[in-house]
Formats: sequence, C-alpha cells, structure tokens
Amino acid sequence: MTGRLIARKPVLRLTPDGARRRPDALAVEEPLELRVAGRALAVTMRTPGHDVELAHGFLLTEGVIAHAAHVRDARYCNSRDDNGRNTYNVLDIGLAAGMPAPDVGVERNFYTTSSCGVCGKASLDAVRQRTRHSPRADPLRVAFDVLAALPELLREHQRVFDRTGGLHAAGLFTASGEALVVREDVGRHNAVDKVLGWALLQGRVPATGSVLVVSGRASFELVQKAVMAGVPMLAAVSAPSSLAVELAEDTGLTLAGFVRDRSMNAYTHTDRIVTTATTLQASTPSPPSCINNATAPT
Amino acid sequence: MTGRLIARKPVLRLTPDGARRRPDALAVEEPLELRVAGRALAVTMRTPGHDVELAHGFLLTEGVIAHAAHVRDARYCNSRDDNGRNTYNVLDIGLAAGMPAPDVGVERNFYTTSSCGVCGKASLDAVRQRTRHSPRADPLRVAFDVLAALPELLREHQRVFDRTGGLHAAGLFTASGEALVVREDVGRHNAVDKVLGWALLQGRVPATGSVLVVSGRASFELVQKAVMAGVPMLAAVSAPSSLAVELAEDTGLTLAGFVRDRSMNAYTHTDRIVTTATTLQASTPSPPSCINNATAPT
Repeated sequence: MTGRLIARKPVLRLTPDGARRRPDALAVEEPLELRVAGRALAVTMRTPGHDVELAHGFLLTEGVIAHAAHVRDARYCNSRDDNGRNTYNVLDIGLAAGMPAPDVGVERNFYTTSSCGVCGKASLDAVRQRTRHSPRADPLRVAFDVLAALPELLREHQRVFDRTGGLHAAGLFTASGEALVVREDVGRHNAVDKVLGWALLQGRVPATGSVLVVSGRASFELVQKAVMAGVPMLAAVSAPSSLAVELAEDTGLTLAGFVRDRSMNAYTHTDRIVTTATTLQASTPSPPSCINNATAPT
Repeated sequence: MTGRLIARKPVLRLTPDGARRRPDALAVEEPLELRVAGRALAVTMRTPGHDVELAHGFLLTEGVIAHAAHVRDARYCNSRDDNGRNTYNVLDIGLAAGMPAPDVGVERNFYTTSSCGVCGKASLDAVRQRTRHSPRADPLRVAFDVLAALPELLREHQRVFDRTGGLHAAGLFTASGEALVVREDVGRHNAVDKVLGWALLQGRVPATGSVLVVSGRASFELVQKAVMAGVPMLAAVSAPSSLAVELAEDTGLTLAGFVRDRSMNAYTHTDRIVTTATTLQASTPSPPSCINNATAPT
C-alpha cells in the first residue's frame, strides 16, 4: 500500500514571466468502500494507506465499535481493476461474535434524533447520548508555549504535504508536546479517523491526557470524533464553526483555534491551557480563574 | 434565513503577551436534511442560507435533476426545536410529474460501478456516463491576467470570511472576470452546490463560457460537480488531488491550481488559458500549442 501517496503529473507553471512545463506531485485520492460483515457501509474519498486504522477510527467515532477487540478482522476484498490487479479499495471489517451490525447510513446518527427532526441541538444531544467517554473530568494541562508549537511540529511530521500542498494532517500529541502519531489525507475527517484508529489499535482509547491537532478548520464532525475517542483537547490551525464550539462546550472538551504564529483563540474549557501568572497579570483584566496557574512555564 | 451566518461567542485570546477575553464571530454550522418526495435523501452540515440553491445544486450535480423545471417546489418542513420554532433545517423537494425519485445514498453513484467494485477509474467512468454536458468543446478562453486575479475577486465578494475565517467560498465568473455569483459555506461542496444551484435556477446550466473559482483545494467531488453543470474551467486557490486532475483531463475541463500571487499551475486543457506570445517565447521551450495565442493581452 505504500507508494500510493503521491502521483506525478506534468503541469504548466504560469507566471507573469511566462510558462514552463515541469513535473508536479499530486496527493493521491481514491475511493475506499468500507464493508461491515460483507455489507457496504460507507464510501469515502481518501489517500490510500493506513486503511485499517481509518476503518477502526471511522467505526469508533461513529459509535459502531468501542474497543479494538470488537473487530475480528479486516481484509481487502478481491476487487479487481481492468488489468486484473486488486484495487485495495474495498475493506471488509468482520465484527467480533455478538457485535450487532450497524445500520447503513451510520453517519446520519449524529445529525438527527426524533426530538426535533434536524437541528444543531439534536446533533449535540446525539453525541452526548452515544459517547462512552467524557473529556470533562480529564486532568490534562498543557503549557501555552507547548500548545502554540504543536502545529509546527505537526507540519514537520507531514511527509507528503510539502511536496503536494494537498493534504490535511492530524496528529495526537502528549501534554509535553511529544508526537504519538501523525497521519495525512486528502480528507480532513479521514486524517483524524486514521489517528484515532491508530489510538484504538494501540489501546490508547479513551485518549486521556492527549491533544488532537488538525491542520485546518474545526467542524462539528471533528469535535464529535475527538469526543467519541475520549480526547480532551482539540487544537486547530484555522477557525472553528459555531456548532464545533457548542459541542466542545457541552462535552467538556478544550477547543483552541487559529493556533499559529505563537498565539491562539481558546473557545472552551480554557483552564487546561496553562500560561504564566506574571504574563496574565500584566495584560488581562479578566478573572484569573480563566487560566490555570498551577504550573507556570516561562 | 438571513442573520444565521455568524454566531457571536466570547473567546480567550492567548498570545505571548498574555490573555484577554473578547467577542469572536464564528461561522454558523447547522445540519440540513434534504428530502425528496418526503423521503430523507441526505444530511449535510452547512451554513444556513441559500438552502434552495444548495438543494438544486446537489440534485443537479448528483444527477437526480437536469433542469430547474424538474423541481416542482421546495418547502421547509415543519421541523420544530425545543422552543417550538421552525428550525429551517429540513427541506422537502417535490419533483415534477414523471421524474423518478432517486435512490437513497445517491452520493455513492459516483464512487462505484459494477465493473471493478470501487476504484478511481470507476469513479471517472461514472461521471462520464452520467453527465449530460461535456466541457470538451467549450470555446472559452480566459486571459492569464484575468484568471490570476479571480481568487482575489472571490475574496472581495466574501462577506463573512473576514470576520470568521471559517468559510469556504465558491464563485462563478465570466471570461472577462465579472462575478456572476459568490456563495460561502462551512463545507466547500456546499458552497459549490449553492453556486451551481443558482446557475440552474437562472437558466445558466450548462454553464458554458464560465469559470468556477473555489477558495480551497480541488477534489474529485468538486470537478465532478463542475462537469455535471457543464462548467469548462475550475480554478482553485490550493492544490488539486490526483483524481481531480484525472477527471478534468478525461472530461475536457480546464483545471488550474495554486491560483495565487499572480501565478498558477495549469493541469489540464491548458489551451483555454491565454497568455502573450512574447512572454511565452521568452521563457518556455515547450511547444507553443500548449498555449493559445489567438488573443494576446499584455
């Protein structure tokens, strides 16, 4: 499955100085069909590689499984292209004995309940009802300086981005800024599923004490995935949506956005982000309770 | 439906100089359930507003409808939140007499065919089989300078981005750089659906002679949508994926990526991008046939 991350294509580079033809590296995008017990459950456009982790992460964060032991096996089906080669684009997940097969359309679980048809509040309720983990009591504390540096560390771990510019990244980090795993994908939700699937397979779910970092924006779906995996903190390089902030507030997850250039916006449960008492006193009139000063890195 | 684009939340702004609490503007994200003939077809997380256009664009680009007349009516269902207010998150599309109701799971149409199970080539074949339009013969020509300026024009038309930083934008432009329509959404596919739905409702599909500009990356899905609406050129601010380039090549669509800072990469059908003969001669050893010199802006 390696060697399928990048495709080489000729490109015409056009600038005010003229045009020249040159080779270019593109992020590979291919469909992956996930089957559970032989039945198609979902198709996603993803970058090949770490497909088994992707499947575990998807099934975990959609509430189909809760432990690695809930999966009996994962096999690429015998799906052939025109040249008779296996496409490695159909993955069949066998569930452990006694595990109920999920409904088709499992993604819709989090968007609707019977209470109000479809609304943001119903989506929040659905996550709260389905998650087995709550970040609320997680004692994680991360120093401001460590957190501010994580996107740059994520970027350093991205193997493909610098060549293609076309991949989202997600990574799981410790409170001291150690990278546990970094994954890339053309789809941001797939990159997160690969990271959380890795965590499940490593016995690290609930992922207490860790920080999930994503290269782009923070949507409802990404916060949902973090909560379902028991991650207490999500840091995004770009903006969160309204519903992402509401879900984070609701579930006890610390959500930081615009984490770049040594600064950030902290939206929810900000006491997990630790900064120095002196800095605080110097510049903010807001109550010190917003910031945890228990440990004070400089 | 206006006034639901932005939500205000307090945020803790953290910098090396300290922390301060301030109001922040967030892009609104809410679920939208699309029903066709009373049956739920899809749920998408979108920014409220232009929902009827979104529905038309989605149904057009998924191959369910081909003309505005194929839709009889679009009504918000009576979906109530806890306070008894209509959520405006459930839209029921009535099809014109004689129009067949689509299968549930319509999005999967483009990811799989019976030939090879699931693979990139099957996805390309599916678009080619289903589209009623071919960009291949479209005589569109766009001057390099005009094309290079479109992302900046798109940005100028974005009403919400500068306040939230959280919205994708898509716009349809003429060959001379006039903006026909610009839409924003937390989901890039939704922004494109809103633009193409507008075009359908305006009688502008197939959208011959126009350029679709998107603020982010170009995926297979976005090229698929452009082709299904008969758009001959797609310009993206960021990188395309491998399958996006293959589909553009295959269907005759001109695909440009990294359109920013007065330069771009042209991946497919580059003869629609017109630059000056003198510039070309000065800098490129590639065959002049790559570039159309019929009109030569300076």
